[in-house]
This record gives sequence, structure tokens and C-alpha cells, in this order.
Amino acid sequence: MSGNSFGTLYCVTSFGESHGPAYGGVVDGCPPGLALNSEDIQKELNRRKPGSSRHVTQRRETDTVEILSGIYEGKTTGTAIGFLIRNEDQRSKDYAAIADTFRPGHADYTYWQKYGIRDPRGGGRASARETAIRVAAGAIAKKWLRERYGVVVRGYLSQLGSQEIDFKDWKSVDENPFFCPDASAVAELEQFMDALRESGDSCGARVNVVAENVPVGWGEPVYGRLDADIAAAMMSINAVKGVEIGAGFASITQRGSEHGDELTPEGFLSNNAG
Amino acid sequence: MSGNSFGTLYCVTSFGESHGPAYGGVVDGCPPGLALNSEDIQKELNRRKPGSSRHVTQRRETDTVEILSGIYEGKTTGTAIGFLIRNEDQRSKDYAAIADTFRPGHADYTYWQKYGIRDPRGGGRASARETAIRVAAGAIAKKWLRERYGVVVRGYLSQLGSQEIDFKDWKSVDENPFFCPDASAVAELEQFMDALRESGDSCGARVNVVAENVPVGWGEPVYGRLDADIAAAMMSINAVKGVEIGAGFASITQRGSEHGDELTPEGFLSNNAG
Amino acid sequence: MSGNSFGTLYCVTSFGESHGPAYGGVVDGCPPGLALNSEDIQKELNRRKPGSSRHVTQRRETDTVEILSGIYEGKTTGTAIGFLIRNEDQRSKDYAAIADTFRPGHADYTYWQKYGIRDPRGGGRASARETAIRVAAGAIAKKWLRERYGVVVRGYLSQLGSQEIDFKDWKSVDENPFFCPDASAVAELEQFMDALRESGDSCGARVNVVAENVPVGWGEPVYGRLDADIAAAMMSINAVKGVEIGAGFASITQRGSEHGDELTPEGFLSNNAG
Amino acid sequence: MSGNSFGTLYCVTSFGESHGPAYGGVVDGCPPGLALNSEDIQKELNRRKPGSSRHVTQRRETDTVEILSGIYEGKTTGTAIGFLIRNEDQRSKDYAAIADTFRPGHADYTYWQKYGIRDPRGGGRASARETAIRVAAGAIAKKWLRERYGVVVRGYLSQLGSQEIDFKDWKSVDENPFFCPDASAVAELEQFMDALRESGDSCGARVNVVAENVPVGWGEPVYGRLDADIAAAMMSINAVKGVEIGAGFASITQRGSEHGDELTPEGFLSNNAG
Repeated sequence: MSGNSFGTLYCVTSFGESHGPAYGGVVDGCPPGLALNSEDIQKELNRRKPGSSRHVTQRRETDTVEILSGIYEGKTTGTAIGFLIRNEDQRSKDYAAIADTFRPGHADYTYWQKYGIRDPRGGGRASARETAIRVAAGAIAKKWLRERYGVVVRGYLSQLGSQEIDFKDWKSVDENPFFCPDASAVAELEQFMDALRESGDSCGARVNVVAENVPVGWGEPVYGRLDADIAAAMMSINAVKGVEIGAGFASITQRGSEHGDELTPEGFLSNNAG
Repeated sequence: MSGNSFGTLYCVTSFGESHGPAYGGVVDGCPPGLALNSEDIQKELNRRKPGSSRHVTQRRETDTVEILSGIYEGKTTGTAIGFLIRNEDQRSKDYAAIADTFRPGHADYTYWQKYGIRDPRGGGRASARETAIRVAAGAIAKKWLRERYGVVVRGYLSQLGSQEIDFKDWKSVDENPFFCPDASAVAELEQFMDALRESGDSCGARVNVVAENVPVGWGEPVYGRLDADIAAAMMSINAVKGVEIGAGFASITQRGSEHGDELTPEGFLSNNAG
Repeated sequence: MSGNSFGTLYCVTSFGESHGPAYGGVVDGCPPGLALNSEDIQKELNRRKPGSSRHVTQRRETDTVEILSGIYEGKTTGTAIGFLIRNEDQRSKDYAAIADTFRPGHADYTYWQKYGIRDPRGGGRASARETAIRVAAGAIAKKWLRERYGVVVRGYLSQLGSQEIDFKDWKSVDENPFFCPDASAVAELEQFMDALRESGDSCGARVNVVAENVPVGWGEPVYGRLDADIAAAMMSINAVKGVEIGAGFASITQRGSEHGDELTPEGFLSNNAG
Repeated sequence: MSGNSFGTLYCVTSFGESHGPAYGGVVDGCPPGLALNSEDIQKELNRRKPGSSRHVTQRRETDTVEILSGIYEGKTTGTAIGFLIRNEDQRSKDYAAIADTFRPGHADYTYWQKYGIRDPRGGGRASARETAIRVAAGAIAKKWLRERYGVVVRGYLSQLGSQEIDFKDWKSVDENPFFCPDASAVAELEQFMDALRESGDSCGARVNVVAENVPVGWGEPVYGRLDADIAAAMMSINAVKGVEIGAGFASITQRGSEHGDELTPEGFLSNNAG
């Protein structure tokens, strides 16, 4: 196996290159009886889609998903769900100039050394475009978790370069191209990004993900702990360089008396342990 | 995971139902640098294709394969190879009559009990049409094994109902619709099948598979033995009810003095142990 | 991984060599709450134990099992169950004579070619003594299946060399050293074996395994079918050369009209499909 | 499987509870031909051992490891390496007081909810004592990596509560109970810890791990990336709340022009991408 599958009971297998004919995925382990159609997946893909604002990559893709199996009369049957996203904007000539060079921070050099061959067009398999498959597979998982368990998983931008962002409300997150949870901060972010882009530079960001209503006991103990699986999933995203759970690195300076998530009849008093 | 992947280093993931939009597969772990195009897969699919003689299912499918990833300039890159076979003959109305019944020897009843839902069209996921994905994935593996190691894997019909067939030559195998290795026996097989069909009945068959030039030491010890993996792969094919290796069940009555594969400077004297 | 684990939800990992310090195993995935002590395992090991009659290997081992984890106050806790069987009869000098030869039908030659090193004492890791770990792990699984689901899994000798044996009753199976289900046939088997041994030869055997009360729908579809897993498990036992399910190879000559397991309000009329 | 195995080609399976009879592990996939004895593992376990200074848990254990398989004449054979560490200090009565309570930050509550049963003695399976198995399995891996590839993996304490520690030299790391790489800072750390302990409190820490001479191309692409596997391994350690690779969270404020690891004929100019 070459790293293209993730998960055990709910297992996602992914294929596709940045400028090949298509991306696709197989979700194996989705329970039967979930109402599912391509629109459920499409609306999540639309949020990820490139070219949606001037702040992101300008590649033009509709990212239209087609479900190929696993559904009968609008419901999942418990069999593998195959789906396909055709690439439309295959401007591989744009990459001709870099076919003989290795870009810093990209996997070009590693692929070259590992396989002795590489698809230089847009990073090939190493392109961040692969995250479309994660979004699609995640859309199915999120729908099941929400309908079956009431679990809601959401994320927002909490820092962009030097700009720290306070969480105000979930409603704002979907109303600006930065997924910023503070409507009043958006104008400043736009100025920051425009200035950065003008200087020909870029920066990093921090994203917070919150899962609500998760039942006690999910995940396996020891090596299969939920936080370990989450850390692997996050770190396997192309440019991710760090993962924190609960209080994260702040727990270094926290005292035990402060850090402990007291368990009371009303529930846990904090989320420091994650 | 729900049983739709097979293998570790060379891992095949499969999806698709008999009367859904398409079948597809993902081969993860094919080494880089193998010359590969859709024709390499197509010619093996054509051998499996239904409707090619009056003795097999009359469903009409071209079984045209499209490779979606993993190839750059005619060679594998080491990344996942996704491929697709669209269903063309989706006559699901033919199956309306059986939507409320369970056919003996089929998985309908099991799926119904396990998932509480089933796709009744042609067996859905349980249709033997899924073997097209195995043929396609096998075509890639066979090409690699042949080019890299000189390993040749071939099969032939060795028994059809009561008709036992002697092995004459590999050339005959591809020249008749039965994959019979004895050209002189084909006429008799045709008469046997026509009579059987006329009586509205069917029968079983035995297939022999031979792998030549396999290097010593392939497979893992204990639970991952090559013969265990082969047995699982064969038995997971829909109607397979038995698997033998080497002398197989004949070894019950063989004496140890007869069964032992003597190891000599000229190699093993027999293949009883498989 | 080198083939020393088997199973997914109920996963067995095994270690040990024929003449090393000990054999041991880890059962990962046994549900919590099962009453379990070492005697539950020991009684199954005693049935497998060498040296129990003149017809089997004369190695002397008590095969005493020690449970090392996974139990609290007499019940499983859901964590991994580690257990140990110390080797007592480590007469490795007996094998000095064969340190430079390869025995037919054994894995010596394969290990040598694969690893470039081998433990020549009694077959090392390839010794059939490893099946003690399967028996121990199986004892735990059988206890769970019986108490939780009423599933009973039993086996008996159905053929020994040329001697075919009729099934009479389960009671007889445990009352003779051959696990023969026909008390009246035991004397003949003893004569057959004594004559065979006198001639310095050996023979094969056939074993029938019957699982009763198995709920519909166990196992996964496609590659993870229950019959595929069973075939792999059986074939991974050292000298096993063939596996049949249901009617097995008899289905080759069966007509479809005869083979089909008719599904009636009273259940299946036969077990040809397994 | 219940989360007690980690890794694919080099797979570690672990068992044992804090106050059960023993901890043990199985390393499956260690290549043949590595010189290995129990002392190679023991010296790493001695570094982890509790009770070695007044700053750590006072539990008394010699943590003596016994190798049970996989070695022949002082070398690994390629088969599974089983090993055992008996618990000596089983003072389970110390924990009687907490049998009915759940400690904050521990897994007691989660186990109770998940399994409906738990071993309350010292956290049972969830005890950090399980890391002894990781140390043992890691000792074998480290020896192979060093001898075969020249890869050296080492770690040191870089922050203790509010005390940030500069890296001075590797030699100091092994000469104080804090694994502090700055000999001149040790006195201050001791005062800090003594004061903290006197106040009945505790704090967090940061550890830096450095792997040198790692060849290009290790790990699998996409979901199986080396940084993802490392993140999962680290986060699965009991109290770990965050993982960073390369520049880590500092990359949020780094500009692209600063963050990029330029690839030059002399190698990479920085390690920001990890």
C-alpha cells in the first residue's frame, strides 16, 4: 500500500493527480440507510473550490462530483461508495518551466528521489488538490455523524500571519472568503492579504476545528487514540506543520491545578485535555 | 472497512454494482516505471467479457476501461492507479420479478439480513460482474510480474461437470470459448453444454492456475503465507467452493514417501507441497 | 509486518520458535465482560498437546499457558490479552544432524532463501508448534461465541489416508486419540497407523469443521467474505493443501438443480453453498 | 483490533496493565541479521525507568526485559520478536481509594463508558507505564536504523513549565535526570521542580526530537506521510497535547520568503518544512 487509504471501519481510498484526467475516491464502511446524493457532497466541495476569491489560487475548476456506486434509490446500501471529480483546467503547459526544478516546500524532490519518476504538472499526486477527496469523503462522514449522533464538526480561521482572530459566531464563518468567525475583522484581513500579495509573499495560518456532542469512548485506546488519528489526519494535509489538542502547547506552562479538566456532576469544567 | 480492499503492498480497492452507473478500482502500490496503457488492461477484460459465446451470460457489455490516474507519459509513477468501467447494459427491469425473492446460492438474503437494504438489480454489489475489477487489477500485476521477474501466471479449464479435461497445450486455451487446453475435446464440451442448457440446468467446473518462475521466498510466513493469500483470493470469488494447492486433497491418501517434494541439485522433483 | 497477525476486529498476534524460550500471543479485540481464566485456554491446549498418544509426535511439553494481561477480577476488560507458553523440551541437539540439510515439505529452504538466516531447531518459526497459539486464541474466541451467540464450532477426523470415516456422534470425538466420530472405527485406525509407522511412512488426513448457529450476515462482502477468511486461516496451517466449503469440489459435478440451497420458510434445505 | 498495534512493515503490538502480571510486546518486521540481545533494550529502558530521581514517580521497578523469540545465536532471524517485562511493584491497594472516582486528565472515565468495566489499579491499560513497550520496540528500531543507515534519533528537554532551555550539547543530555541539554541550567530546573512539588502542583514540558541522516523519500505519500505517522505516534503518548514538525506553529507568522527551505547544491538551507 502506498499511503492512499485512511481509516479502518470508515476507510477512504483516494487517487488522482493535479493535471491528470480526474480525481476520485472510494468510501468503504459507510453504514446503510443514509440518505445521500451528490448535492450533499457538492456543497462541501464548493466551499473548498479554488478560484472563489482573489485571495486563493486562480485555477478554474467546477469540482463537479459524480457518485458511481453504493447508493440505491437515494440511500446508501452499505457497499463501497465510489465517486469522481474530473479535472477541467489541465493547463500543464504552465508548469513546463518548472519541470526541471524543485520548488521549496513541495514534494517534487522527494518524489524524484523515491520513485525515480514524477509528474511535474502542478505537483502531480502531491498537489493540495487531493484534499478535494478528503472534503468529499468528509461530507459523507459528517452527514452520518450529524443524522445518527447529532455530532457537529466545524472549523474556522483563528490566525492569519500575524493577525489573531477572536471567535465571535459560526454564522460569520460562511459569509466571507476567509472563513473568519468575526465579521468586523474581515476588512483588515483583506488589506493584510492584498499588501502581502503585492509584496510577492505569503504567510501561514491557524485553523480551529470544533467537534460537538461527541459521545464518550470513541476511538481506540493506546496507539489508536482518537487524538492520534486526528493528529495523523491533520498532519497529512500538505502544508500543516503543527497540531494541538485541547490546551495544546499552552499546557507546557499550565500548572496541573489549572490544567486538570475537573469532572463534575455538570460535566467537564474545561477542555484542556482535549 | 467493508471488505472492498485486498492486499497490503499491492492493494486493490473495488467499487460498483451490477446495475449502477459504473464499476471502478484503485490499485495502490504498483511500482513506478512500468509501461502501461488502457489496452494492456482491455485485452484481459475482453477475455472475461460476457456475451462472447452462447455458453455464457448474454448480457451485452463492452467493458471499456478508462485509466484515470497514476500514469505519466505512458509509465506508472508509483501513485495510485484509478480506473473506471461504465455499465452499459443496465436492464434493471429484468430483475423486477425477483426484487421480492431470494435466489438460492446468491447473497441476496445475506445482504438483506446484514444491511436491512439491498440493491436487487442483478445481485447489486454481490454480482459476479465485480470480478472485472479483479481482472483489471490482475492485468497490471501480471504485466509487472512478467516484465520484472519473468513470472507467468496462466489458467485453464480442467473439468466441466463430469467432463475431465487433459492438459495438452497453452496455445489451445485461447482458441475456444471454454479456455480448454485440449482442442480435440472442445466439440464434446459444446455438446455437453448444449444438452445441459436444453435441460434447463447448469453445472460446476474446475480451473487450474499455474504460476511459473516464482522466486523462492515470496509471501510472508505463518498467517501471511502465499498459499493462504491465494486461498482467500480464490474463495472470495463468488461461486468458488474449494481451493487446492500442490497435490491438494490427493495428499490425504498419498504416503509421505510419495508426497515429499525431494529437493535435489536439479531442483524440486515434484510440486506436491505447492 | 511479517505475517504474524491474523484478523481485524479480533486480531491475533503470535510469536515463538520451536526451540526458543517460549511461544506467546496477543489477542486484541476480545470484548469486555467475558469470564475467562487460564483453565479455559488450558483445556483446549491439552487436546492439541504433543506426546498424548503413540500416534503423534513424542515431544514432551505440558503446554502450560499463563495469562499476562487483559483480565481483571476474572473478566476480560476489553484490552489486549497477552499469554505465554514456555517451551520445556528444547532438545535442539536432536536437530544438529539436519542443520545443513533442507527437509522436503518444510519451510527450511524458503526461510534460508528469504532471510539468509534460519533457526534450524525443529523448524524454528515454521514449526507446527505455532498452532498452539491459534488454539489458545481460538479458545477465547470460541468461549465468547458460545456464551454471547450460542455459536458452537467443532471438528472431527473424516478421513485418514485411505480410511474414510462416517460421522456417528460428537461424543465419540473426544474419546479417542484420533478425534474419530465413530467409536467402532477406532481399532481399525490404530491398526492402520501402526502398520504405516512400522513401514516408516506417513499419510494425510481430512478434517471436517462444523459451525452451528452462526447468525446470517457475518463476515464482510467481496474480498472479506467469511469463506475467504476461513480458507486463508485453514491454508495457513502448515500442512494444509486444500480447503472446501459446503459441497466443495463435489459441486463440480453437481447439477444446478441439485446444488442450489433452496430457501424455504423452514430455512435452507441444504448446505451446498456453505 | 483495539488499538494495540502500531506500524505496517515494522509493526509493534503491545499488552499489559499497570498492576497486572506483566507488560509485553511483539515486534513484527524487524529485518534478519541484526545483532541483538536484551542489554540493547535494557539500557534504553533504564533511561525511562521510574524511581530514578526524586523528580519522577516513585514506583520501584527494575523493568527487566526478557526476549522470548526472534533471535538465534545473537542475531535476529526476521521472525517476530516477543519480549516481556514483569511488573514487580504491584501495590494495587494504593489505588483502592480511587476505585470509585475518576481522575481528571486520565482515561478512567472513558474506559468506564466504553467498556463498562475497568481495571482501576494505576490506570490499568491506560497507564503511562505502557510507554516501556514503546521504548523497548524503539530500541530495536533505533539499533537497526543506526547500523544499517547511520540514522540517529535523539531527544532532549527544551522547556519545563515556564523554563525555556537552550540546546548546548548532546553530551549533557544523559548526565542529568531532566535530559537537559544545558548543564548550567540543571540547578535552576531542580529548584523549580522542588518548589513546584512543595506547592503540591505539577507542570507541562516540551521535548525536541531530532533525527539525523534520514534518507530522502522515507514514508508514504498522501495519508501515510512520515510527518503524519510521527504526529500519530507522538499524540498517542498519554499526556501529549501538541506536535510540531519543522518550524511548526512558528510558520503561521513566517513569510513564505522566510519559510521556504531553499534547495541548493549544498542541500537544504533550512528545516522549516520539517
